[in-house]
Amino acid sequence: HFCSKCCIKSAQMCLTGQYIHFQVHKCALSSNNSMVCFHCNSYCKLDSGWVRSVRPQKENLFLHVNDGSSLQSLQVVASSELNHRLLTFGSAVEISGSLVTSPSRKQEVELQADQIDVVGECNPVDFPFKIKKKHGLEYIRQFPHLRCRTNAFSSLLRIRSEATAAIQQYFKEKGFIQVHTPVLTSNDCEGAGELFQVEVSSKNQDEEGHQHFFSVPAYLTVSGQLHLEVMAGAFPGVYTFGPTFRAENSQSRRHLAEFYMVEAEISFTQSLEDLMKVMEDLFRSTTEHLLDQCPEDVALYHKHVITYTEAINILNSSSKKFAFKTDWGCDLQTEHEKYLVKHCGDFPLFVTDYPYALKPFYARDNQDQPLHTAAAVDLLVPGVGEMCGGSLREDRLDLLKTRLAQAGLDEAYGWYLDLRRFGSVPHGGFGMGFERYLQCVLGVDNIKDVIPFPRYSRSCLL
Amino acid sequence: HFCSKCCIKSAQMCLTGQYIHFQVHKCALSSNNSMVCFHCNSYCKLDSGWVRSVRPQKENLFLHVNDGSSLQSLQVVASSELNHRLLTFGSAVEISGSLVTSPSRKQEVELQADQIDVVGECNPVDFPFKIKKKHGLEYIRQFPHLRCRTNAFSSLLRIRSEATAAIQQYFKEKGFIQVHTPVLTSNDCEGAGELFQVEVSSKNQDEEGHQHFFSVPAYLTVSGQLHLEVMAGAFPGVYTFGPTFRAENSQSRRHLAEFYMVEAEISFTQSLEDLMKVMEDLFRSTTEHLLDQCPEDVALYHKHVITYTEAINILNSSSKKFAFKTDWGCDLQTEHEKYLVKHCGDFPLFVTDYPYALKPFYARDNQDQPLHTAAAVDLLVPGVGEMCGGSLREDRLDLLKTRLAQAGLDEAYGWYLDLRRFGSVPHGGFGMGFERYLQCVLGVDNIKDVIPFPRYSRSCLL
Repeated sequence: HFCSKCCIKSAQMCLTGQYIHFQVHKCALSSNNSMVCFHCNSYCKLDSGWVRSVRPQKENLFLHVNDGSSLQSLQVVASSELNHRLLTFGSAVEISGSLVTSPSRKQEVELQADQIDVVGECNPVDFPFKIKKKHGLEYIRQFPHLRCRTNAFSSLLRIRSEATAAIQQYFKEKGFIQVHTPVLTSNDCEGAGELFQVEVSSKNQDEEGHQHFFSVPAYLTVSGQLHLEVMAGAFPGVYTFGPTFRAENSQSRRHLAEFYMVEAEISFTQSLEDLMKVMEDLFRSTTEHLLDQCPEDVALYHKHVITYTEAINILNSSSKKFAFKTDWGCDLQTEHEKYLVKHCGDFPLFVTDYPYALKPFYARDNQDQPLHTAAAVDLLVPGVGEMCGGSLREDRLDLLKTRLAQAGLDEAYGWYLDLRRFGSVPHGGFGMGFERYLQCVLGVDNIKDVIPFPRYSRSCLL
Repeated sequence: HFCSKCCIKSAQMCLTGQYIHFQVHKCALSSNNSMVCFHCNSYCKLDSGWVRSVRPQKENLFLHVNDGSSLQSLQVVASSELNHRLLTFGSAVEISGSLVTSPSRKQEVELQADQIDVVGECNPVDFPFKIKKKHGLEYIRQFPHLRCRTNAFSSLLRIRSEATAAIQQYFKEKGFIQVHTPVLTSNDCEGAGELFQVEVSSKNQDEEGHQHFFSVPAYLTVSGQLHLEVMAGAFPGVYTFGPTFRAENSQSRRHLAEFYMVEAEISFTQSLEDLMKVMEDLFRSTTEHLLDQCPEDVALYHKHVITYTEAINILNSSSKKFAFKTDWGCDLQTEHEKYLVKHCGDFPLFVTDYPYALKPFYARDNQDQPLHTAAAVDLLVPGVGEMCGGSLREDRLDLLKTRLAQAGLDEAYGWYLDLRRFGSVPHGGFGMGFERYLQCVLGVDNIKDVIPFPRYSRSCLL
């Protein structure tokens, strides 16, 4: 089903097959009944959607009807006789009629309705969103079960869906295998943040009570990386894209208890440049996909690379007072990251080669004493700070063994050492916060506004 | 990067860009160094992978090397001098050389190696998989961190990744929005199985102890349906594809504690036929995608439709003794489902219009007293039994209100009643177990063998 005018697949704009919503029944512009495209504003027929405005005039009734397939609503013109008290803002309607060229300049086409049925009422007094009123995001956020009915949030949902598809398409084209890494895990000692623990609901538990369902304590994953590394032992490239969890007691605009992360591992690589190339390509190709129809040359696409040591020098020679100190060896805070991005021209910025002591056991030792850094890299972006973090992984069995033993983790990670024993390959990987990505490209301030159902400390609505 | 011979995108077979694995350095068949495709067995160069066999002969050394991009390994021929004690089954190698036409009939091409580097050793005594030995699935399952190195499981991972892409492509082409429904939920009363409860890990808890992180008890989702119904209030079609949880204390071959489910909701529909069309199309198009290169006319594609009442009549007139009784009103057990599928010719079978009392509050009342059924449908498939279950949703406010009140759920589901208050539309939806789907199309007996990291009662390895 392609539109003969603009060659855009009609399925992207409207549902086909058994549940057609844009369909020509009796068309004023064409003699045939073939499917046509709404995108290029050529003729079509809208037969169901939600009322966005009602303007009764003397002879005619004007409606705007939206079916969620795009931001744009369709103008519907009907005889005043078809007006009805249930035809209110927010109500769901099914309409039959003909699409004709519009006499107005505001739209190319409009629907002349023969019949309008209200299939779902909507009392405008009770409905929390009011006609023609622009509600703030904070107000909208109070109605998680209804906010998809606003322009802002329905747009966000379309964009999120497109971005998800673009990420998957990127990795598929590059030959990566998508792995469903588990949400439940018995790894409890990675120390990458506060953990959620999982047990059978108390009301379902036996009298006996507290035996673990899995025999061992189980947690919600904080990262799929170690599981991906298992699969990196048999494939040149693997990735995962799914929910990740942190039990951080934070009410910040940047944190959620449940968020989506893209993580990838690449085998047979020994350079951070390889990793940075994938991180950059992923960002670029996903964003290009989103901007498909508006191909401006976005400044976003510039980028810089500095080392952690250079970053510290920049911070130390700044006149700005930071809340956290910036000695070599310190972790970069959000205030530092934002300063660095600004300092480097407000473009995406890679920071490489972090202090060895700051990084987890799996980061590859650069063996560059006395400074002693690890082959790790973060991608910082304007407005958000850290969006991606990655590293080459320590593939040398002896070094990894020593480090795990020093941390008292060698027993728990026997299986991880096995990966280095049986045909290990030099590899590296990274993770990208999907919500952070959306915040960055959309300029959305609060992370709760880029996820369908936000979960955070003291809030798990619905 | 398309292969000039078979027009297949080379990226599907091998990684491109910064991490090329199949690349022509010095080609015996071509004078240029352009990227070519391995799929059509034309010339290329493999430069890294894992050794699948080593056959040293008097003058030559023969290796089979596999990089995980397909089941097929590449034959490598080298001078005996390049043999090395570390060149063992399972070791990771990087090879340079030229690809030439093979003198043998077994393969069209082979790689003449100039240099072979073992980048990852593999001690064949310790490695649990042995050369040329066909290990059983039960044996393989004991090594969740290494089983991707077997042919059987690396194939499964490629198929799972392709099936995931096919499902997403199907819905995208039909104009559905993908929604990331939450894993964490405060809905505890749906009663669709045993729940996992989530709390901050005890070691991270304050002294005070047992205050809930989310202020309310939180659970792992058993279904994204209600959240999807929220979004069905603003879009003609929505779907979700992600992990789902059941705390069932089962060691069966058919159940997991964490499994993947595809769920969809379709607005503006009033017929089970619409739902069945989508369920069937999804199954058909995903399977066609998987069979892309082997377009046999599979018997799988036939299907039948019967009502629950007809199903009960079939079961009651059977001479077979069932463990569970088959009076009208009973739930269909796996033994019944398998019998019905066999009885109807071992094809996929829709069973519609189940007893109203068996179905949850959201199933649409058929109002067909005295039998009294609901507009629900299951899709049963050979070898597996129930693969999909769906229903039209009760969109009539008064009926839904009464039913929720009878169940004492009207307070907890006030937000769900709101969805029927503000522009409700007739809609329906369904869920498909992704692992059940894979079991069905691959004929895999144990569900643990179609998921990367299985979680079930008493087992949460890695």
